[in-house]
Amino acid sequence: MTGHQGVPPVNPGGTQREVRLEHRLLVFTGEGKGKSTAAFGMGLRAWAQGWSTGVFQFVKSAKWRTGEAAAYAALDEAHRATGQGGPVEWHTMGAGWTWLRATADADPAALARAGWEKVAAQLAEGVHRLYILDEFSYPLARGWVDVGEVLDVLARRPAPQHVVITGRGVPPAVLDAADLVTEMTKVAHPFDRGAKGQPGIEW
Amino acid sequence: MTGHQGVPPVNPGGTQREVRLEHRLLVFTGEGKGKSTAAFGMGLRAWAQGWSTGVFQFVKSAKWRTGEAAAYAALDEAHRATGQGGPVEWHTMGAGWTWLRATADADPAALARAGWEKVAAQLAEGVHRLYILDEFSYPLARGWVDVGEVLDVLARRPAPQHVVITGRGVPPAVLDAADLVTEMTKVAHPFDRGAKGQPGIEW
Repeated sequence: MTGHQGVPPVNPGGTQREVRLEHRLLVFTGEGKGKSTAAFGMGLRAWAQGWSTGVFQFVKSAKWRTGEAAAYAALDEAHRATGQGGPVEWHTMGAGWTWLRATADADPAALARAGWEKVAAQLAEGVHRLYILDEFSYPLARGWVDVGEVLDVLARRPAPQHVVITGRGVPPAVLDAADLVTEMTKVAHPFDRGAKGQPGIEW
Repeated sequence: MTGHQGVPPVNPGGTQREVRLEHRLLVFTGEGKGKSTAAFGMGLRAWAQGWSTGVFQFVKSAKWRTGEAAAYAALDEAHRATGQGGPVEWHTMGAGWTWLRATADADPAALARAGWEKVAAQLAEGVHRLYILDEFSYPLARGWVDVGEVLDVLARRPAPQHVVITGRGVPPAVLDAADLVTEMTKVAHPFDRGAKGQPGIEW
């Protein structure tokens, strides 16, 4: 078995041929439901591979995605207790980012930039194998975080670090740079007929 | 606080108004990536709500979605050990369905029907709050499971039991009956440029 350009080959589970470890930029965007849930579903595969995952939620409310956060906390705990799966680091902007101890009324643009700077620093250090930048489209679309800087940092990141970006209105330059883009299109939605949000489904 | 038409109101977390518990039929379909991962991401919310979840994978290979299966097994174990979250029951057709002990070379049409019959029986009994019927579009599209029967069973299921169906080519009658349909559209995919599957991303 020969390596590719110095990258050590891996043979996961013995069922695949040698796989070259690339880094991937994945985008889940569009008006439909399932963007963030697809990212968090993908994170289950990363966890099962024993990868380290960093979640950065660029959302205002600290109460956002609490179901996913609770499940990932349980997976992180399972990793610490039994060694199965991988560790998960979870940060939410709406809580002021855990490393900042910012207040809830902090400037969202400054918070978003602080979040991105943390991601950029972790990418440079190779802290995680998977980064889920949930709702990161919004600070990008609003110009709070510079698209050119993001693409530059991503282009220079050491492999293998995968990055998933979710949210509506991802800037075209980010779509162009992505290895995989899925657009979630809303075909039917219960809110259209006046239904209310449901626990376990919407949060 | 008044109930609606005999359905007891709930007030999850105290942050929402009273929510009428409906049952939902959700469909993730289309050619793009993220259908099953969106369903399994949504299941994390159900788990965090303490719901019982039943996963039925209508796929041939027993090795399918092993990452998600491992993560859900860890969440089920966390529930049993600490009481947090909810229980998860996981069945894969490619393994012959656990309750059947069928052989790997069993007739896939018969296996698919046996899987659906189990789901129908559980729906009638109200065993789970969430059912993830992964790749169920395929036996429906092939006529192995009758669409009319499925819609009839779903229409008569006791509330609140949510059902998520994933896969390409979901029959139109199922789409019509669904409360939410998201079509995952492929905008870009690394396989288009000849990239190979990656551990932690594709499985």
